[in-house]
Amino acid sequence: MDIPSDPLEDGGIRRFGERLRKGEITSEAAVKAYLGRIEALEPHLRAYEFVAADQALAVARSLDRLLTAGTDLGPLMGVPVAVKDLLAVEGMPTTAGSKVEVSDLIGAEGAFVKALKGAGCVVLGKTRTVEFALGGAGINRVRGTPRNPWDADVFRAPGGSSSGSAVAMAAGLCGFAIGSDTGGSVRGPAAFCGVFGLKTTKGLWPTDGVFPLSPTLDTIGLLTGSAADAALIAAALQGRPVTPSSPPRGLRLGRPDDHFFDNLDKEVERCTTEAVSVLEAAGITIVPIEVPEVPIADDVFYDLIAAEFIAVMGRDRFLDNRQRMDRDVASWGATGLDIPADRYIRCLAHHQDLCRDAQRRFQNLDGWISPTRPLVAPSVEAFEDADAYRKLARRMAQNTRYGNVAGLCGTSTPVQASAGPLPVGLQAACAGFAEAKLLSIACLIEDLVGIPPRPVVKPFLAEKS
Amino acid sequence: MDIPSDPLEDGGIRRFGERLRKGEITSEAAVKAYLGRIEALEPHLRAYEFVAADQALAVARSLDRLLTAGTDLGPLMGVPVAVKDLLAVEGMPTTAGSKVEVSDLIGAEGAFVKALKGAGCVVLGKTRTVEFALGGAGINRVRGTPRNPWDADVFRAPGGSSSGSAVAMAAGLCGFAIGSDTGGSVRGPAAFCGVFGLKTTKGLWPTDGVFPLSPTLDTIGLLTGSAADAALIAAALQGRPVTPSSPPRGLRLGRPDDHFFDNLDKEVERCTTEAVSVLEAAGITIVPIEVPEVPIADDVFYDLIAAEFIAVMGRDRFLDNRQRMDRDVASWGATGLDIPADRYIRCLAHHQDLCRDAQRRFQNLDGWISPTRPLVAPSVEAFEDADAYRKLARRMAQNTRYGNVAGLCGTSTPVQASAGPLPVGLQAACAGFAEAKLLSIACLIEDLVGIPPRPVVKPFLAEKS
Repeated sequence: MDIPSDPLEDGGIRRFGERLRKGEITSEAAVKAYLGRIEALEPHLRAYEFVAADQALAVARSLDRLLTAGTDLGPLMGVPVAVKDLLAVEGMPTTAGSKVEVSDLIGAEGAFVKALKGAGCVVLGKTRTVEFALGGAGINRVRGTPRNPWDADVFRAPGGSSSGSAVAMAAGLCGFAIGSDTGGSVRGPAAFCGVFGLKTTKGLWPTDGVFPLSPTLDTIGLLTGSAADAALIAAALQGRPVTPSSPPRGLRLGRPDDHFFDNLDKEVERCTTEAVSVLEAAGITIVPIEVPEVPIADDVFYDLIAAEFIAVMGRDRFLDNRQRMDRDVASWGATGLDIPADRYIRCLAHHQDLCRDAQRRFQNLDGWISPTRPLVAPSVEAFEDADAYRKLARRMAQNTRYGNVAGLCGTSTPVQASAGPLPVGLQAACAGFAEAKLLSIACLIEDLVGIPPRPVVKPFLAEKS
Repeated sequence: MDIPSDPLEDGGIRRFGERLRKGEITSEAAVKAYLGRIEALEPHLRAYEFVAADQALAVARSLDRLLTAGTDLGPLMGVPVAVKDLLAVEGMPTTAGSKVEVSDLIGAEGAFVKALKGAGCVVLGKTRTVEFALGGAGINRVRGTPRNPWDADVFRAPGGSSSGSAVAMAAGLCGFAIGSDTGGSVRGPAAFCGVFGLKTTKGLWPTDGVFPLSPTLDTIGLLTGSAADAALIAAALQGRPVTPSSPPRGLRLGRPDDHFFDNLDKEVERCTTEAVSVLEAAGITIVPIEVPEVPIADDVFYDLIAAEFIAVMGRDRFLDNRQRMDRDVASWGATGLDIPADRYIRCLAHHQDLCRDAQRRFQNLDGWISPTRPLVAPSVEAFEDADAYRKLARRMAQNTRYGNVAGLCGTSTPVQASAGPLPVGLQAACAGFAEAKLLSIACLIEDLVGIPPRPVVKPFLAEKS
């Protein structure tokens, strides 16, 4: 079976746009290429919950005609995109990764998806997610777990909750992908799958039309083939010029040595150390810092999300349907039944304090760096025991959840170039709403570290599984 | 015993300012007059928790010198003000009406009191409040209940929680008074004591340095001798020109006939009907309206406040000290121990929906009018039985709590002129942050209805009690 090549793999969104405007490629051709790749690789990877082949082709053809007729919607025009199945898209089903009926909680297509479409993106379909986005491994026992494309032999976790978006991006099944991040759900799977991930600041992009796991912490994010692509998308959606890579001289990045560098897998430690050396060699100043409030953030995180999840679902609907939910989702969710209002209110107060403290910590620093996840993708089997799941889940989110509770924006850059065979992510974080700065730092890191190769995914693997 | 006359009774703040600048009066003389009145009437009324005589005289003298030297701080310069004992004032104790130590929850003098001082006000002292502001009758069994000055024979409730501020204003023991309003705590005592009350929109004036009963609903308000005084103070504190009285022609005021006109005392019904007739005769259009979401607001109100109160106090501090609290405060507070987080979160969501709905209801209306309280001040004795207290308390707040939960601003204007002997308040409400419009409407109502006389309070009453 002959698989079409990924039309955006060479040069990303910018190069695709140049070729599109020169008539060397059409949006329709790009969509067809992705549909061909999806057909070949999906039986193995299961990244998509729903593929909107006809709708995507019709939209792509219309956009091609529109561009030919002289209407240019900008740098994202004609780019095929995959949307996490937590966000409503007009004309497509939304399951939120569940078999429980929750469409009333999601509502109609929201402003963010409308903005993507208005910028000329073509929605290829909906990607799999952890049920209700409540978990970081990427495992979904009720609707299926996408396969991490980096290991042909062992079924490894893709990371979650934006599991399908990360797998689709890593395997070249879309031009870029939309995820959401409430505790690491974009950055985590980006790290496990070796793609670039951007978690935006709460409030930057609207979350109407998205299943509201935690209205206080939910954010939308991007999974892309490069920091440069993410910078271009963010700039296009925010209507501002793309910020170029930050110059390395004078850049000061904090390195939170405690907590964020605990319990590291050897590969993670090696790749992080190498990447940091490259940054220092380029003239970036790395400043050891302490973030003593991290344990408070961890406590706040689990209660805040569980309480808001139960409030969103409704106590009765949760209780009536918990047997139909993924074991670990139901288990975390159930902790929200017993949280008293005063504890929740104190969580909110801590959250506000942590946001304020965090903004202050960035006064003399441009950003922070740390490993995104302290470990590489474990096998799905490692999560089978419920206790093992809980321990691994807490460890996985060790370095990402603080960014949500403290109101930061963050990225994960693949830095596994010299190691392997599994991806490792380097997390960068900036103060809330400093996305332009964050992406200029991420582009610099990418310039210095380089973009690692994509995984080799062959269709015969599908036959093996 | 000869009582000095109230230096602001004739002509209010504007006239006082004119006389001050002409050299006909000094701030020191005004403070001395109020201290004299306080000395004579406090044994009877018990409006003040703390009188800062020396500090007030020193400040007044300094301000007089400053004005003489050519520095004019504006229209509030030299005006003696009473501050509810829920707000911290530098150099004065703050009890929040309690014998429980809660100063850590209040903190240092906040931005609002600093703004008052910066505008040249002289703080006379701290006025009594319902314990933790948690109640509308004005009764405080642990630190004392101020006496409603309108009845020399029966000890009637002053209304609360800004009980002392309303009594001090009604009895001429300050130029104006500061209160706070979480469910009617400014408008209610204004109605019971026959003074003007303004409850501002949440967020207009900062509440740091104020005991945080409900951080979601707490607002600061004013108790003044007239709507004109309140308009002048609000304009001065917000740094905008005073909005003149609204012209009556073209003004459309909604009258919510359901709920807000239920269970009215005869005096309240008669005074309200008369006042509305006066407004209509002047050319104001009264539009009957429906507010079907009021019952939701009522449910939200009690849970939201109780949950936030427990969160603020801390569960352990509440449990350790409930025996030292006022019976009815402890009883309402205790309901907050058993509210689960999801119910609280749903209250917050309802609150946001109610705010949105309310803003929409004002699209074709300038404001609303209704009775402030459906009843005149009951005797303190009527609250002795705990069940009777609960029923009366719910009824008292019937028309005010909606404004808090729905994010409105509101006023209470005394309209008892032709009836009596007890005061009746007419409530006006406007959309959030429409204080300028609200006060222009309140000034118009005052122009049309007239300012009723103050109660006659004689020092011999002190000897009787």
